[in-house]
Amino acid sequence: MLEESVVLIGKKPAMNYVLATTLPLAEGKKVVLKARGRAISKAVDVVEVVRRRFVQNAVIERVNIGTEEGRVGNDGRARNVSTIEIVVAPPNQAKKK
Amino acid sequence: MLEESVVLIGKKPAMNYVLATTLPLAEGKKVVLKARGRAISKAVDVVEVVRRRFVQNAVIERVNIGTEEGRVGNDGRARNVSTIEIVVAPPNQAKKK
Repeated sequence: MLEESVVLIGKKPAMNYVLATTLPLAEGKKVVLKARGRAISKAVDVVEVVRRRFVQNAVIERVNIGTEEGRVGNDGRARNVSTIEIVVAPPNQAKKK
Repeated sequence: MLEESVVLIGKKPAMNYVLATTLPLAEGKKVVLKARGRAISKAVDVVEVVRRRFVQNAVIERVNIGTEEGRVGNDGRARNVSTIEIVVAPPNQAKKK
């Protein structure tokens, strides 16, 4: 079974998440990046920086988008928030030698 | 051949893009939503609102992420910007009767 590592994208600088994504990939594990709302753009940035600078042949296996319901906003009203899930696989996972 | 409609996500309110996406879907066309940088989150929001409120069985056919190189920022330095492309198909496209 292939181990997966989950990285939740939040408010820290993107480079923190780039590192958190690069390390498991370098060990041959898949990484699932998850983000909500405005952090979605950052999740895409993180994947792109990893693929261009750190793990060059990393493969984007899957990108899912969705909605998380019933989160309560600052005004006390329930609101939905969009989500993204990006699965990145290490290079040799995809092209099996 | 299946007609495609392209919606570029920018700085307008999300509902503008929701409408621009809903109309072609209602006519049986595919819609390609494209966004860069911070607008990426808005693109995901638009697709989710369309699927939940307007074209309930619309199908997300494909989500691609990438990088656009060489855009020059406010400081005059070239910088890369992340991009997303989401292809949404009308319901009857996917499940052919």
